[in-house]
Amino acid sequence: MYFGNDYSILVQKNILDYITKYASEENIPYGLDYHSENAKSLIKKAFKTDGDIYFLAGGTQTNMVMISSALKHYEAVIACDTGHINVHETAAVEGSGYKVLTATNNDGKLTLDNIEKMVNKHSDFHMVKPKLVYISFPTETGTLYSKKELEAIYNYCKNNDLYFFIDGARLACGLTSKFNDIKVDEFSSLCDAFYIGGTKNGFLFGEALVINNNKLKEDFNYHIKNKGALLAKGFLPGMMFERAFMDSLYFDIAKNTNEMSYLLQDELNKLGYKCYSPTNQIFINVDTKLAKLLNEKYHAEYWSNEIIDGKQMIRLVN
Amino acid sequence: MYFGNDYSILVQKNILDYITKYASEENIPYGLDYHSENAKSLIKKAFKTDGDIYFLAGGTQTNMVMISSALKHYEAVIACDTGHINVHETAAVEGSGYKVLTATNNDGKLTLDNIEKMVNKHSDFHMVKPKLVYISFPTETGTLYSKKELEAIYNYCKNNDLYFFIDGARLACGLTSKFNDIKVDEFSSLCDAFYIGGTKNGFLFGEALVINNNKLKEDFNYHIKNKGALLAKGFLPGMMFERAFMDSLYFDIAKNTNEMSYLLQDELNKLGYKCYSPTNQIFINVDTKLAKLLNEKYHAEYWSNEIIDGKQMIRLVN
Amino acid sequence: MYFGNDYSILVQKNILDYITKYASEENIPYGLDYHSENAKSLIKKAFKTDGDIYFLAGGTQTNMVMISSALKHYEAVIACDTGHINVHETAAVEGSGYKVLTATNNDGKLTLDNIEKMVNKHSDFHMVKPKLVYISFPTETGTLYSKKELEAIYNYCKNNDLYFFIDGARLACGLTSKFNDIKVDEFSSLCDAFYIGGTKNGFLFGEALVINNNKLKEDFNYHIKNKGALLAKGFLPGMMFERAFMDSLYFDIAKNTNEMSYLLQDELNKLGYKCYSPTNQIFINVDTKLAKLLNEKYHAEYWSNEIIDGKQMIRLVN
Amino acid sequence: MYFGNDYSILVQKNILDYITKYASEENIPYGLDYHSENAKSLIKKAFKTDGDIYFLAGGTQTNMVMISSALKHYEAVIACDTGHINVHETAAVEGSGYKVLTATNNDGKLTLDNIEKMVNKHSDFHMVKPKLVYISFPTETGTLYSKKELEAIYNYCKNNDLYFFIDGARLACGLTSKFNDIKVDEFSSLCDAFYIGGTKNGFLFGEALVINNNKLKEDFNYHIKNKGALLAKGFLPGMMFERAFMDSLYFDIAKNTNEMSYLLQDELNKLGYKCYSPTNQIFINVDTKLAKLLNEKYHAEYWSNEIIDGKQMIRLVN
Repeated sequence: MYFGNDYSILVQKNILDYITKYASEENIPYGLDYHSENAKSLIKKAFKTDGDIYFLAGGTQTNMVMISSALKHYEAVIACDTGHINVHETAAVEGSGYKVLTATNNDGKLTLDNIEKMVNKHSDFHMVKPKLVYISFPTETGTLYSKKELEAIYNYCKNNDLYFFIDGARLACGLTSKFNDIKVDEFSSLCDAFYIGGTKNGFLFGEALVINNNKLKEDFNYHIKNKGALLAKGFLPGMMFERAFMDSLYFDIAKNTNEMSYLLQDELNKLGYKCYSPTNQIFINVDTKLAKLLNEKYHAEYWSNEIIDGKQMIRLVN
Repeated sequence: MYFGNDYSILVQKNILDYITKYASEENIPYGLDYHSENAKSLIKKAFKTDGDIYFLAGGTQTNMVMISSALKHYEAVIACDTGHINVHETAAVEGSGYKVLTATNNDGKLTLDNIEKMVNKHSDFHMVKPKLVYISFPTETGTLYSKKELEAIYNYCKNNDLYFFIDGARLACGLTSKFNDIKVDEFSSLCDAFYIGGTKNGFLFGEALVINNNKLKEDFNYHIKNKGALLAKGFLPGMMFERAFMDSLYFDIAKNTNEMSYLLQDELNKLGYKCYSPTNQIFINVDTKLAKLLNEKYHAEYWSNEIIDGKQMIRLVN
Repeated sequence: MYFGNDYSILVQKNILDYITKYASEENIPYGLDYHSENAKSLIKKAFKTDGDIYFLAGGTQTNMVMISSALKHYEAVIACDTGHINVHETAAVEGSGYKVLTATNNDGKLTLDNIEKMVNKHSDFHMVKPKLVYISFPTETGTLYSKKELEAIYNYCKNNDLYFFIDGARLACGLTSKFNDIKVDEFSSLCDAFYIGGTKNGFLFGEALVINNNKLKEDFNYHIKNKGALLAKGFLPGMMFERAFMDSLYFDIAKNTNEMSYLLQDELNKLGYKCYSPTNQIFINVDTKLAKLLNEKYHAEYWSNEIIDGKQMIRLVN
Repeated sequence: MYFGNDYSILVQKNILDYITKYASEENIPYGLDYHSENAKSLIKKAFKTDGDIYFLAGGTQTNMVMISSALKHYEAVIACDTGHINVHETAAVEGSGYKVLTATNNDGKLTLDNIEKMVNKHSDFHMVKPKLVYISFPTETGTLYSKKELEAIYNYCKNNDLYFFIDGARLACGLTSKFNDIKVDEFSSLCDAFYIGGTKNGFLFGEALVINNNKLKEDFNYHIKNKGALLAKGFLPGMMFERAFMDSLYFDIAKNTNEMSYLLQDELNKLGYKCYSPTNQIFINVDTKLAKLLNEKYHAEYWSNEIIDGKQMIRLVN
């Protein structure tokens, strides 16, 4: 039993079987192979988009590659304080030269109100120019934006010359959550770019970055290579995404994950812990002794160093 | 009458006279001339330091040059939210690849408590590593740190392997404030590096960066040149700092500035505005109509776009 | 038949079998798992080193991560004009902020003489400071440095405060070449850092960066994460390197590759093409019609756009 | 007597007189003042351009600011090997993240043929994309491009989606050379951007960057600030350029410089040194003893460390 994260197991069986089948096949490198082409077609169909698609190795890399391509160095990304790019990426975005402006989160989410305030505050060339809005779906605390919320943010972005980019490291869990009101084939129309997470959904690794906005598309393979992110054997993520979207596998994996989370939450609620996560990340305040035990036995992560009234926040992921 | 900033007049008379005297003299370039050497000696004596000294063209440049030299890209600077590097430098620090971590200010100041919290929050390699504490003396809202406060921060830094860097764009006004309790020859001993502002104290331009900590000294001219910040005619700031520290001129200019500010504050207080600035930046909440008038007639700066109860914050600087 | 490159096939059978065996095992992320630990021990033993070892996804990424960690922005890397970082990495090194100084190659190699000239030319702070020597073993044209040559370069580096880093994308082919005079357990002692290529030797992907010099070791996981290069499932390359170095597999794969290359060269020599490659990259000048045919049927790469006397250089890799 | 460079004297008398006149005048900061506006109008008239104009502090800074604004990180600048950005700027361009591709110079100049070869060599996304051509007028060895040569390069650039940028650190000497065939009011039409050097032509400091191509103009003040290059007292270079272009002063200074150079060359030619510099940089091969003497007495610069047949290249600048 391991509740430390959702990437502790190497690979889901069907995906492994699929790449095993093609283990000895000769393929063209750098994502120009037929598996990658198939995978892109299947993703385009599932998400009803004709965006450009690129396969990258991990979430931090994908965020950094997308954001650094979209911005000039005097432009900034708006994220909420709990946003992955702000806290858990060791300054990969800033390291490549771009400021992250942070607004206080509301239940893990960036609000339209906070975006507007941030934009209005930046009024002249002594201040950075907000240019891209970054959110995660689901958020870093497991919560979800409603369709209405995403529409409102995207409309604001379009009206204010901002890009809207959604980090979908756990997109599968978001879209298959029983609390989600966005259909798969609607999601892509709600943003300029997003990525479809594989690493946290049974893949060896791999994220599929979908770029809808034409302004963000140019020379993207050059940019990926420049960041050291171009995979020689691009057909490996190609095959994995091909298999995952060949049928409902991509979503089935996540549905099962969510259901396990709901079961666990039911039990925790019975024990008096208040859990309300719509996806697979559960945060509970437990006393420090129990926290230590859950960490040592099940790899539950300490979410904060702070101890308040003898209690500490831990995270259980499945 | 101009209250927009403290750099609206080209140059103080004595400084102009001095450079005029040497206008036709042949000098070695890049700061290796005898005026620069003299200036450095005088500064070292005044501040009782044997740090390395470099002359740069402006405040944002000096902050960016110092911070980008001190940090690796996975390390971060801690500043308060109102810090100049955070708000008013168009991401010069992030643009060169370094994250600015921001803590809520207390009357314009970064508190030891907030520094500690920030350091403790950053615990592993998924998060940036706090490495440098940045403050301004005086702060961006005109306030001052006490000697005790600076000592406490510097001690904390030394005990936690952090650098302490002080932005002295208005250092002269800070040190000559009647509310200041730090002697000129004590100041340098309170930090690893700081700069002595000229642009806002009667110079054509120019800041003197003083680096006390040996770990920060290596190859600094290479670094300055790499950032496009090396002045060919380094003897120009050299002459200006030489003149300013030849006698008490550097501090006399600022003393006068502060006194004008106190006079103005007295009058404003009589009118019911609560002013308490220890230096030359005065912030008052006035109704929007008056704000507009002060802006148009005297270049008073709108400090925020926010209008609360019909009032707006403006800044008067002299 | 595919002669386009040495990474057209997904994965070598033994390596696939090994990861299949552990496909459902729970592991700690980010390279802190026991497979990675095992792999590192095996590599240390094989190469007789106690360097720090990190697993990265590809060659360009590894070069960029290593070089950007070793240098300050006013320092430069010396490479030969044909060096991979100079030609085929879309400015990944410069994109992260570091100059590549290039010297004319001698049969694909950087000569000590050229290194010395380059160092001597850079004499003051108006010029970049050479700080790291980069070579590839084997080179980009398939040639090899002798032990004596590497010793001479490394000695020069140590005497002149330079780092010596070897790109080992095809290290296996180099070390198993019948023309090579360096033993596996001597190689690591000849440089400050090098990497052991997996992508071009039967792995799904993966390079093992070995850092021998203590000055280059600090906070390396922070740095990797900052560059977006930290793999969540670090146990995947961990397992692959574990399997490859568990017995002689890593070298057996390459030995076979080289033998196929020698056979092919023998036949080509019989046909009158002069081939002399000690490893698996063969360059021949063929007339343009044949070049086209070899490109279309066997993916032979055009090595240059230049056509001289009706002939064009192509590359055959196996 | 000082032959070390052309920026050893602080300021030309007329320019000093002019700024002295306005020493106490209140002005708006950051280049938005009326002197700057006047200066820009005068420059536009002299050069017959309606480009955007910005005043920066020095040549390396101006090159870095312009190039880093024009390029994406996977794009590169083409320069000749002797180009200032390649040799004498401590990797300011690469430090900000952009590769400099270098071609062998022909008498200090980049040839169209070399530009074409460089462009043709870069054919896919594994290689950087050439995007900007950089030359200096006059070159770093004092030579000049003819009008025909510039036209040919600019035409090629326009036809191949490249920008053409001219470093005019010594533009005044170039345009007033008796060997120059380009009229002042033609020069701007021969490139996308160029700068008009002040530092090496009697100013305290200052370069005027002229951007003709609309694609290069957007948000330029944001970009300048982001690089730490925005001057608070922008009216200082404003006043100096205003004075210099108010009448023929800017060119008169340079004409005199060139004439002194021609006189010196005549004398040197009589002594048997072959001098042919069209501008104010003279390079002669002298025996090492004389080189040492000229260096010590007159600051003549050693142009190279190399001693061939007992002779060494020195540079005399006036």
